[in-house]
Amino acid sequence: MPQGQPSVVPDDGLTTRQRRNRPLVFVHTGIGKGKSTAAFGLALRAWNQGWPIGVFQFVKSAKWKVGEENALKVLGASGEGGTVAWHKMGEGWSWIQRAPAEGEPTNEDKAREGWEQVKRDLAAETYKLYVLDEFAYPMHWGWIDVDEVVQVLRDRPGTQHVVITGRNAPRQLIDFADLVTDMSKVKHPMDAGQKGQRGIEW
Amino acid sequence: MPQGQPSVVPDDGLTTRQRRNRPLVFVHTGIGKGKSTAAFGLALRAWNQGWPIGVFQFVKSAKWKVGEENALKVLGASGEGGTVAWHKMGEGWSWIQRAPAEGEPTNEDKAREGWEQVKRDLAAETYKLYVLDEFAYPMHWGWIDVDEVVQVLRDRPGTQHVVITGRNAPRQLIDFADLVTDMSKVKHPMDAGQKGQRGIEW
Repeated sequence: MPQGQPSVVPDDGLTTRQRRNRPLVFVHTGIGKGKSTAAFGLALRAWNQGWPIGVFQFVKSAKWKVGEENALKVLGASGEGGTVAWHKMGEGWSWIQRAPAEGEPTNEDKAREGWEQVKRDLAAETYKLYVLDEFAYPMHWGWIDVDEVVQVLRDRPGTQHVVITGRNAPRQLIDFADLVTDMSKVKHPMDAGQKGQRGIEW
Repeated sequence: MPQGQPSVVPDDGLTTRQRRNRPLVFVHTGIGKGKSTAAFGLALRAWNQGWPIGVFQFVKSAKWKVGEENALKVLGASGEGGTVAWHKMGEGWSWIQRAPAEGEPTNEDKAREGWEQVKRDLAAETYKLYVLDEFAYPMHWGWIDVDEVVQVLRDRPGTQHVVITGRNAPRQLIDFADLVTDMSKVKHPMDAGQKGQRGIEW
């Protein structure tokens, strides 16, 4: 972890404190493990600071991330740190109370609806940390316009940090983000014929 | 995340279930962010499975990882998942009750003492997940013999998963590990003159 003095001091008119507390956009991309896991690890620090946390899971999964979800819900309900709101695309999003009257919404519709809610929450400054899990995919697939995402993030009010995970993060997002980590796979047990296991993969 | 069918089915005499539940050694290395953070995120899943977790922090830090530590301690004490034991090298290790009679132990001594405890715990099957945070450094610095580490890990009894983090993970360890992720830095805010901030870096 880099510590100590930054390598350059920018001529941006900000004090060190202002610059230090600037809200950040993180991107965790690449084909290796740890993109989402590191995002949820980051949420532990945010929780410890008492920050309200909003998690939005953008890709439906048979197993979701039950370990992280249960852990963060227990933490959020402990009364010792921040709060945690957990939203899943594949379960209709928690703020949608009923199914639409006609026609099942597609995954593309659901992803867009999730992004609309993120925009509403950013405008309202609902959370201080947003985990937009697997959000790189709907951008990569063209379901959500990356230029709009960048603009919304650039214009977001207050101090709201945003972590976006997923393979194939679009170039415009990487260019805009403050911190980008590429998780590269060096070795994975499935290459040696091992399937995922409880407690490790979910 | 890889799911579904593994690319090869090895001729190792194990059933799919045996192979699936084989204990794993993870290495998170590279110069990017997220090595430790992803390890603590993994601990959330282990906690959710009710596993006893042992964390050993091998490099003294002014800020440690207070967010992760507080969160995992609250989880461990919640009675809902697994237990969490958290050990820090720079605070004398929790199992050492008093300072030695003469002479201050060096960091090298302390790292070795930590490794000796890990060996005792592995032999006793104390935990089901070990987070050996920043443990790559004492190996890289030659304080702890990597060949011994690999041998101890290879011979460990039962089902004990081990995550080792840190830059410059030695080649022998990478060769031995089941899952290796290299976290590459694409972009970091300190490159743009921003210092670390509370809730984000610690």
